[in-house]
Amino acid sequence: MKIGILGSGNMGRSLGILWAEQKHEVFFGSRTAEKGQAVAESAGNNTQGGTNDEAAAFGDVLLYTIRGVNPAEVLTSIDVLDGKILIDCNNYEIPENFAYQPIELSLAEKLASEVPQALVVKAFNTMAQEVFELSPQPLNEYNVSVFVAGDDEDARKMVMSLAADIGFAPVDCGELRFSRLIEGLGDFIRYLIIGQKLGGYATISVETLPEAKNQRLGGRQSSSLH
Amino acid sequence: MKIGILGSGNMGRSLGILWAEQKHEVFFGSRTAEKGQAVAESAGNNTQGGTNDEAAAFGDVLLYTIRGVNPAEVLTSIDVLDGKILIDCNNYEIPENFAYQPIELSLAEKLASEVPQALVVKAFNTMAQEVFELSPQPLNEYNVSVFVAGDDEDARKMVMSLAADIGFAPVDCGELRFSRLIEGLGDFIRYLIIGQKLGGYATISVETLPEAKNQRLGGRQSSSLH
Repeated sequence: MKIGILGSGNMGRSLGILWAEQKHEVFFGSRTAEKGQAVAESAGNNTQGGTNDEAAAFGDVLLYTIRGVNPAEVLTSIDVLDGKILIDCNNYEIPENFAYQPIELSLAEKLASEVPQALVVKAFNTMAQEVFELSPQPLNEYNVSVFVAGDDEDARKMVMSLAADIGFAPVDCGELRFSRLIEGLGDFIRYLIIGQKLGGYATISVETLPEAKNQRLGGRQSSSLH
Repeated sequence: MKIGILGSGNMGRSLGILWAEQKHEVFFGSRTAEKGQAVAESAGNNTQGGTNDEAAAFGDVLLYTIRGVNPAEVLTSIDVLDGKILIDCNNYEIPENFAYQPIELSLAEKLASEVPQALVVKAFNTMAQEVFELSPQPLNEYNVSVFVAGDDEDARKMVMSLAADIGFAPVDCGELRFSRLIEGLGDFIRYLIIGQKLGGYATISVETLPEAKNQRLGGRQSSSLH
């Protein structure tokens, strides 16, 4: 897969390296060609680098790491995004004292409204840098979820496949509007990591347990959460 | 520990049984003494039953399962709650098509404002009935989180201990205001269980992974979530 990274800071650089290690073709984009090239040089693994425009033109899948910024301010023309998968991995800034505002509109939905011809998919907003260091092994033994939401099912499945490639356990979360809940998870795990001092190896995941052998309690099943 | 269950439906009945199995003294309260007694009779394990007033008087720790209802409407006098630990395990009702409203005020905070002399603790709102069937074994091997928030640290620690008793892995989430995020987790896991058909054995948990042996990516640590 050809992957373009828009904004090659910490997050973009790390995910780009992980995908390049798995033999994907990766292009690091940045505000200037020099900066993008420098990231590629330090990243190795046959990666390339240049401007964000070049990265957007290069990739079939694009990772958008530029939190809350309209792509029209980043790219010469947003037409280059038409029909491409655009992964939004962002969370709102952490407010003073973790006094998060309730999420009325997710960053992913905001992005989708700005580039309606792109296939926006929410993913990779619930783990810290430390977790990427564990990819792909032993990470693939730990069942760490990547929560994936997007209105285009094929795009969602592609991103789930890219998550699995680097050792994560993708969870299909359906439509893009569920990004609101997923960004809420991003808020929660950042609070635990930083505010509650669990550190960057703290992860949040969904796991389906094996069924009980005996049903001794006799309550209603499944829909019984209060 | 003496535990009173206020509202002995599915959730209250199951948790009451689990605690009684661990040799806690449990009293099931209900709108009528007859109903509370009937729950105790079917629950066994030396449990007692009667009115909600009696359950509130009996317990040092109280489980409040009556979603969103002011205790003043349930009890003859709320003075009986003064200084007692009051566990709120509730989530807002699931709206049509899972179109959740953003949580401005959590149910737990609403409850705390209604009974300011009680020590309200949020817990047990992120798992379905099925998971209780696995308690305490093999549940204690699965690291299933109970997210616990409350403004009184001792109360929080007591509820964490009650969660551990029945095989869960308690996670200290700090002040009661973080119930907003925890109730968001409740919304999310109910969507996955029902809407995405993962079923009632789907759980959401926090796990801290072992550190990476090599730090090859070289990004900033810990605060690097986007």
